[in-house]
Amino acid sequence: MIVEISVVPIGVGESLSSYVSEALKVIREKGVKYQLNPMGTVLEVDSFSELGELLDEIRCRLEEMGAPRIYVVVKADWRKKATDMEHKVKAVEEKLRS
Amino acid sequence: MIVEISVVPIGVGESLSSYVSEALKVIREKGVKYQLNPMGTVLEVDSFSELGELLDEIRCRLEEMGAPRIYVVVKADWRKKATDMEHKVKAVEEKLRS
Amino acid sequence: MIVEISVVPIGVGESLSSYVSEALKVIREKGVKYQLNPMGTVLEVDSFSELGELLDEIRCRLEEMGAPRIYVVVKADWRKKATDMEHKVKAVEEKLRS
Amino acid sequence: MIVEISVVPIGVGESLSSYVSEALKVIREKGVKYQLNPMGTVLEVDSFSELGELLDEIRCRLEEMGAPRIYVVVKADWRKKATDMEHKVKAVEEKLRS
Repeated sequence: MIVEISVVPIGVGESLSSYVSEALKVIREKGVKYQLNPMGTVLEVDSFSELGELLDEIRCRLEEMGAPRIYVVVKADWRKKATDMEHKVKAVEEKLRS
Repeated sequence: MIVEISVVPIGVGESLSSYVSEALKVIREKGVKYQLNPMGTVLEVDSFSELGELLDEIRCRLEEMGAPRIYVVVKADWRKKATDMEHKVKAVEEKLRS
Repeated sequence: MIVEISVVPIGVGESLSSYVSEALKVIREKGVKYQLNPMGTVLEVDSFSELGELLDEIRCRLEEMGAPRIYVVVKADWRKKATDMEHKVKAVEEKLRS
Repeated sequence: MIVEISVVPIGVGESLSSYVSEALKVIREKGVKYQLNPMGTVLEVDSFSELGELLDEIRCRLEEMGAPRIYVVVKADWRKKATDMEHKVKAVEEKLRS
């Protein structure tokens, strides 16, 4: 399943990049395949449960950094037919060229 | 933690209300406090892991109904200071009246 | 068209209710039909252009209040067949009872 | 302002890539700077009004393709201090290396 997460700590000032990079460290530690973009991080996970555990760890790490409140947005694209990040982009790009 | 979920089955036609109501049945079966609105369902959960398990059950139920693909959007508002759905709305409404 | 907006000012501290209520004042001033919930505000608008102008006004108002950065999430459900907030919820609730 | 849009036509079957590529064609025709990723398209726009007009054009194009219903998700990051897509990612990657 392909998902995108955006983690927005609140109450820690205007600059959030150190919190976002800490979240990426958790993702790396878990060995999850990811792709960073300017508005979020796209991941490949097997289930919402796996995603939930990952988000709890990220939330703990950011709380330890002092974040009193964290706003999170998740977009998920579950599909019975197996797919991955590369195929999704490739399918669109092929149609763009046609 | 207060979250809002939107479940959008793809490949099952234009009308989605029977799928959304099935998702609400799963939420009810789990005894999770919820509030339906025209663009999603707000829930109170203890963790992202609890949310993940709930979403996996919803995903299974909709797959059983024939949905080959499901798009899900989650917005979550975690806060160290305990809060609930009613307090969040009340805090805004009080400021509206002032 | 039915949309839901969430406005999250960043860099103004942990409590956001005064900013959210100011956003609602802009919506009221514009005479847009709305419904507040714990994770956002559902609106009925005629087009994305109308929504865009509304969001620009909200952004200006919050900037005037001192917000240096604002995170906004919009979910929109455009449908050729006319519908409204009440019908969307009613369609789901009817299926819940059946 | 940096935004990410996800356009999800409903009622047109399971495969959406031809609709997403059509949306990208509209973005290209408008000369808007964009970056495609597996869960959306990140754009740089000057205002929500500009974004609204762009989304109306995309909605019209997809309606012409036969989509009876379109679900859209927008995440926007407005910041008083000028920034761009590259700087946002670079700020995070630098912290990852430190």
